[in-house]
Parts: sequence; structure tokens; C-alpha cells
Amino acid sequence: MVTNGKKILELAGTEAVYTTCGYQMRYIIGFDAENGAVLVDENGTTLYTDSRYIEAAEKRFAGTDVTPVLWDKRTVKDLLEPYKTVGISFAETSHADYLRLANIGVELVNMDEALKKAMTIKNEWELSCIRKACEIAEDGFNALLPEIKEGMTETEVAALLEYNMRKLGAHGLAFDTIVAFGPHAAVPHHETGLTKLKFGDEVLIDFGCRVNGYCSDITRTFLFGDDGKHEEFKKAYACVLKAHELVKEKLVAGMTGKEADAIARDCLKECGYGDLFTHSLGHGIGLNIHEFPSISPRGETTLENGMVFSDEPGVYQAGEYGIRIEDTVTLKDGKVVSFMGKTSRELVIL
Amino acid sequence: MVTNGKKILELAGTEAVYTTCGYQMRYIIGFDAENGAVLVDENGTTLYTDSRYIEAAEKRFAGTDVTPVLWDKRTVKDLLEPYKTVGISFAETSHADYLRLANIGVELVNMDEALKKAMTIKNEWELSCIRKACEIAEDGFNALLPEIKEGMTETEVAALLEYNMRKLGAHGLAFDTIVAFGPHAAVPHHETGLTKLKFGDEVLIDFGCRVNGYCSDITRTFLFGDDGKHEEFKKAYACVLKAHELVKEKLVAGMTGKEADAIARDCLKECGYGDLFTHSLGHGIGLNIHEFPSISPRGETTLENGMVFSDEPGVYQAGEYGIRIEDTVTLKDGKVVSFMGKTSRELVIL
Repeated sequence: MVTNGKKILELAGTEAVYTTCGYQMRYIIGFDAENGAVLVDENGTTLYTDSRYIEAAEKRFAGTDVTPVLWDKRTVKDLLEPYKTVGISFAETSHADYLRLANIGVELVNMDEALKKAMTIKNEWELSCIRKACEIAEDGFNALLPEIKEGMTETEVAALLEYNMRKLGAHGLAFDTIVAFGPHAAVPHHETGLTKLKFGDEVLIDFGCRVNGYCSDITRTFLFGDDGKHEEFKKAYACVLKAHELVKEKLVAGMTGKEADAIARDCLKECGYGDLFTHSLGHGIGLNIHEFPSISPRGETTLENGMVFSDEPGVYQAGEYGIRIEDTVTLKDGKVVSFMGKTSRELVIL
Repeated sequence: MVTNGKKILELAGTEAVYTTCGYQMRYIIGFDAENGAVLVDENGTTLYTDSRYIEAAEKRFAGTDVTPVLWDKRTVKDLLEPYKTVGISFAETSHADYLRLANIGVELVNMDEALKKAMTIKNEWELSCIRKACEIAEDGFNALLPEIKEGMTETEVAALLEYNMRKLGAHGLAFDTIVAFGPHAAVPHHETGLTKLKFGDEVLIDFGCRVNGYCSDITRTFLFGDDGKHEEFKKAYACVLKAHELVKEKLVAGMTGKEADAIARDCLKECGYGDLFTHSLGHGIGLNIHEFPSISPRGETTLENGMVFSDEPGVYQAGEYGIRIEDTVTLKDGKVVSFMGKTSRELVIL
């Protein structure tokens, strides 16, 4: 992996940068130590960590530019006092912590823009983690499908899918798995529960896992048998799929998030589903499941090569059905490349 | 469940209290909506949430004192302007958000002490959630033991345990499951990996799940077969168990966290393991896996009935072995009551 301390220090333009935030530590040194802190200055990157993590950290960083140090009697004051200016994240520093840091007497500079700028464009190592997380998610889903049986609860289906991903090497989940049977799918963020699967139910599954902290995000919607009552559903499914694929075809680097969102939104409007597409087309994906850029009617960011985000149009008819088709994608050579290719986006009928 | 808006409002002593923090929303209304906010004033509790959650929220809160409202065009300024004083959590409000709130012109009062005071003492409903989370964890562990086979990786064991808990009704994990084989157990927070299980290995598993957001936390250490090379391990195990049980016997309401910690620390010192007990005896458990009170050499909080915390002495001999025996416990009628009773704390040899 590439450590990113130097990059953030340059972008922040301060003498040092300091963070105790898990995902920011993960970004800078590829490791997230609870009760830890990362300090970067012109001499290199130091990880302060406690006795529970120091041994693992010493092994991991042997021969790198990161120096793990046991955080014993030193206070934050001791750490930061030598500098005139220190970059911290205003977004991930609590106001309580800020008040403590402000007392030290160094100038605290907000480094959120630096972090955003650096973290939004993924390097090859980051892309490989996301690619792996996507592969595991798809393989886990494909292993799940033949195991789905009538009478299983939403929770059982989620448990089995999560087990598959873990067994395939996922380090954890990207977020709470959403499994929605029948009309539950019309609730975009349905809380997975104890409803049992019946023949003819539609099934919506929104899930993802993590590899080295990096997330995958994917949604598939399918039918558990066809009871002949799904004409409206199938019509809408075809339109959602059309919108999803149109984004992959038409979205190019240089567009804003707003313009990208409009590709799907206009398509669904033309199909007569404009009012039923109730959320954004997508969101950035990385160490956070929701990060920059925003692909929404308010997305002003210009989309660039190396950004990773979701393409997830949806149509929700309350009390009836819900459809969402989501891939995690990236921009490469100006065009959309999907990380997903192992699962069907065409309507599957089990 | 009991909603806690009124209680926090009284303790905060402000005209209103406001939070967007997941676990604080969960504490106040029993529900955690991403991109949501909870506002409490003398007229009741309002949940502001977006289109993804509003339908579920309306169902859930029908007939309660919580009113869900679609968060559309209203800004935080619109919400807070009517009040002179508003309680917010300085610990869970980012400095960036604080700056935005500070611009509104209302007096922002830190409600962290109020939250700490209220959340540290669990009510019956909270205790029942933790009890259920502990039951599921133990049942999941008991179902795991007969499935453990030579050659399985740490990750596979973790995956199976997590699957068992999910199937038994866990809403999620309390934290990343730690599975450590052999000398890995000597690293208190070992990162579960691809090491394969061998005959004669010791196994340490630290795990927990969530029910309605509330956590369980349990550690068991056992042998996968006895290769006759575990004399030192067994000696240390007996001492850790002695310390663990002594805490249950001697800890009473009215002691400080420091005094409670000393029960186990003194016992392990007498056994000759003082230097190898490298962490605190325990931590509070609730909607957060680590919260108040702290049961450590620096724990000044007086322990009271209704508090929930871990009893987890450990002994770690680097490169050789590690032992930790942990229950989630509460104080009732002045005495320790464990939530665990279904799994063995005596040394198990598979």
C-alpha cells in the first residue's frame, strides 16, 4: 500500500497534520488503531497507539516511513506544541476535542478540503481494494441465490449473504445489509426483519463489504418465482435498468454530479417514473460508504478519473414494489468502468 | 420501549435539546435515522428524517410521543431559532457543525454530562436488550464449538460465529469479532486473519452482537485439543479465572471503578502475573461498546445499580499465549449479576 501522510501534509499547507479519526488514519497509514493518533510532519509519519495495538503496529510498519510509538505519558499538548500550524479535520474532530486542542496555543487549520481532494481520487492500491470488495460481494451473492428457500426470513437471507462474504475474505460489512421482501422493497432503506419469503415475492438486496477498510456497494432486485402478478413491476424494472445502463454509456469525466444524475432522472421521467425516483443517482464510495462526490440534483463537483461512486437509479411505488439496480463504478480514461460483472442486472426469476 | 427525550431535556436544563448523532437518537427515541435529527422541547420529541426513512418512522411512532417530520426545505436554523438555549453534545458534534450552529444565534449548552448521567444507568428495557444480546452471543458460541475443525482459518471461525448470532436474531455486531489462534492470543486486539487452526492451539474469541442497538461483549479462551505443552497456559488460566470470579464476588455498588479494578489487579499480582495484565478490568457497555463507567486504575466514577460493564481480566505472555475471560455484567441490589450463564468459564478442551 501507499502511505498518504506526505500528500496530506502538502495539501494542508501546515507544519504538521494530526488526526484520531479511524478512516483518516486508515487513509494516511492503512491502519486504524482505536485510541490512536497519527501525526505527520516533514520528518515523516508517526502512529501513537496503546499497548493493545503496539505489537501489531511494529510488525506491520517495519521498513516503512511510518513509526509506531507507544502512547504512554505524552499528552496531545506534548505532541503538537513544537509546531506553529497544525492541520486537523473540523468535520471529524468533536467540538469537545477542538476546545482541548485550541488550548495548546498552536494555530489549528481545517484540513477537510485537503482530505476531500486527496481521498476523492483513488490510487491503484485503493482501486484494487474496492475491486476486491466488489468481487467478494458478487461472489457472495451468487453463492446465496441457490440457497434462498420459501419461508426464510429477511434476516436469515442477510445472515447467509454476510457469512458468504466473510468466508470469501471480507474484513467486515460496508453497512447493515438491507433485505426487503415484497412491498418492503418500496421503502428505500427498509430495516431487515423477520418477514418470511413467499412464492412470487420480489426481493431487493442492498449490500456490501470491506477490504482493508474500502467498501463495495451493490443492489440487486429479483423475483422469487413468478406468480403472474408482476406486470407493473417488470415494466418499471426495464426502465430502471435502462436508466442504469444509460449512465454507464453517457457519463463522461468532466460532467458535474448534477449532469450525471440528470442522465438517469431524465430517462425515468420519460418512462413516466419521474416522481417515483425519490433519491440521488449515486454517492462516492471509499473508506466511507457515503463520501464525495455527490451524484445528485445538487452535485456541483466535476467528475474525474479515479473517482469511485454508485450508479443506483430506483423506482418506488409505496405499498406495491421497489426496484433499485446498483453497481459500484469508477471513471477511467474518461469513461465509466463498473467493478461489477459477475452478477446479472437483467431481471432474474428464481 | 421508553423514550428518553423528556429526561434529557430536564437534565440538560435548556429550552430544547438537539442531536444528529446515531446512538444519541437511538437513546432518545429508540431509532437511528441516517441524515436525521432529533429535537426535544417542552411540547415533545420530533424526529426529522428524509424520504428514505419517513414511512418506516411514521409506522413505528404511531401513538407515541415522538412525531416524525419529513426534513425537506427546513434548515437547522429554522429548527433552532425559536429557542434561547439549546443543548447539544460537544463530544458528538463536529467542530464544523458547531461553527454552523453557533451562527444561528441561540445559546449552545453542552449536554454531555446530562447524556452521560442518563445513559450510564440502564432502565429495564435497556437491560432486556443487553440481556438478549448476551443470550444470542452465548447461544451463537455454543453452536460454534462443535463446528470448529482443524485447518479452519480465524476468519472462517469468525464468519461462522457471526452467522450464528445473526440467525439467532442479532441486529448486527457490537464490534469486529476477534478470533486469535495460538500466540496471536497474546495480542489483546489481534486482527483476525487467515492463520489455520492446528491441533493443540489455544483459541481466544472476543465477540458480541447488538439488539436494538444495545451491545453484548464476551471473551472465551479454550484449547483445541491438548498437546501436553500447556502447563504455563493452564496455570495462568486458573489465575485469570480466579480474578474474574473474585470481581463478581467482591465488587459492590458504592465502589469506584478504580477499587473494582484493584480486585482483579491485586489477585493477578499475588499470582505473579501483575505485569502481564496490561489493560483495564472493564468498560461500560450500552449503545456504545465502550462507554461509562471506566473500570480501570484511573476510574473515579462510583459504581451504581443499573450500570452495565465488562469483567475482563487478562494475562498476555508475548509470543506464547494470551488469556482473557470476559462477561457482560450489571449491578443489581448492590451486587454483580452476570448476563452470561450459558457458556463455560472453566477451561474447555475441544
